[in-house]
Amino acid sequence: MIVNYGFNATMTAKPGMGDELVDLLLTGLDEGNPGASEYCLVYLVSRSASNPDVVHITEGWTSEEDHHRIFAGPEAQAVVAKIAPMVAGESAYTDYVPVNGKAF
Amino acid sequence: MIVNYGFNATMTAKPGMGDELVDLLLTGLDEGNPGASEYCLVYLVSRSASNPDVVHITEGWTSEEDHHRIFAGPEAQAVVAKIAPMVAGESAYTDYVPVNGKAF
Repeated sequence: MIVNYGFNATMTAKPGMGDELVDLLLTGLDEGNPGASEYCLVYLVSRSASNPDVVHITEGWTSEEDHHRIFAGPEAQAVVAKIAPMVAGESAYTDYVPVNGKAF
Repeated sequence: MIVNYGFNATMTAKPGMGDELVDLLLTGLDEGNPGASEYCLVYLVSRSASNPDVVHITEGWTSEEDHHRIFAGPEAQAVVAKIAPMVAGESAYTDYVPVNGKAF
């Protein structure tokens, strides 16, 4: 399937909470969570080597509509609710549509 | 295996060469090329939805040494030599180490 919608979001965790934020974002891949969805073709959690509190998430979806529908669901919103208190300031979004590749 | 070294590089193709640059970067996944290496755990080609000449590549490697060794090899250098004339200006590198996730 082809990715028609994607983004890269860079978040800065509150001091010392980088590991926790990475772990939480990775739960997005758990059964029933957004990253495990068949509409989500890319879900990649990365982090900065120089700043342990800077975390990146790259997502690629079959469509913007699919993303928004699943993102509005209870599972996604439960993850979002846990993220909010861990993150300092606004996340920086980049216009980023995965084309192809491999990850883990 | 764990990624111990990674980066995200954003390149701007010369006007109208975005598709060609994407295709060339994707050959990095071909047998014998760097992206197909067992040391390369993440190799993801993405692009901008708003600017067809902006291309991103995210890579994650078992170690910096493994990356540099394979990157110095003839296969990688052959791809690099083809990239150079397609790209305008310098690529922007981001400190970006993939932790886990899925892609295609």
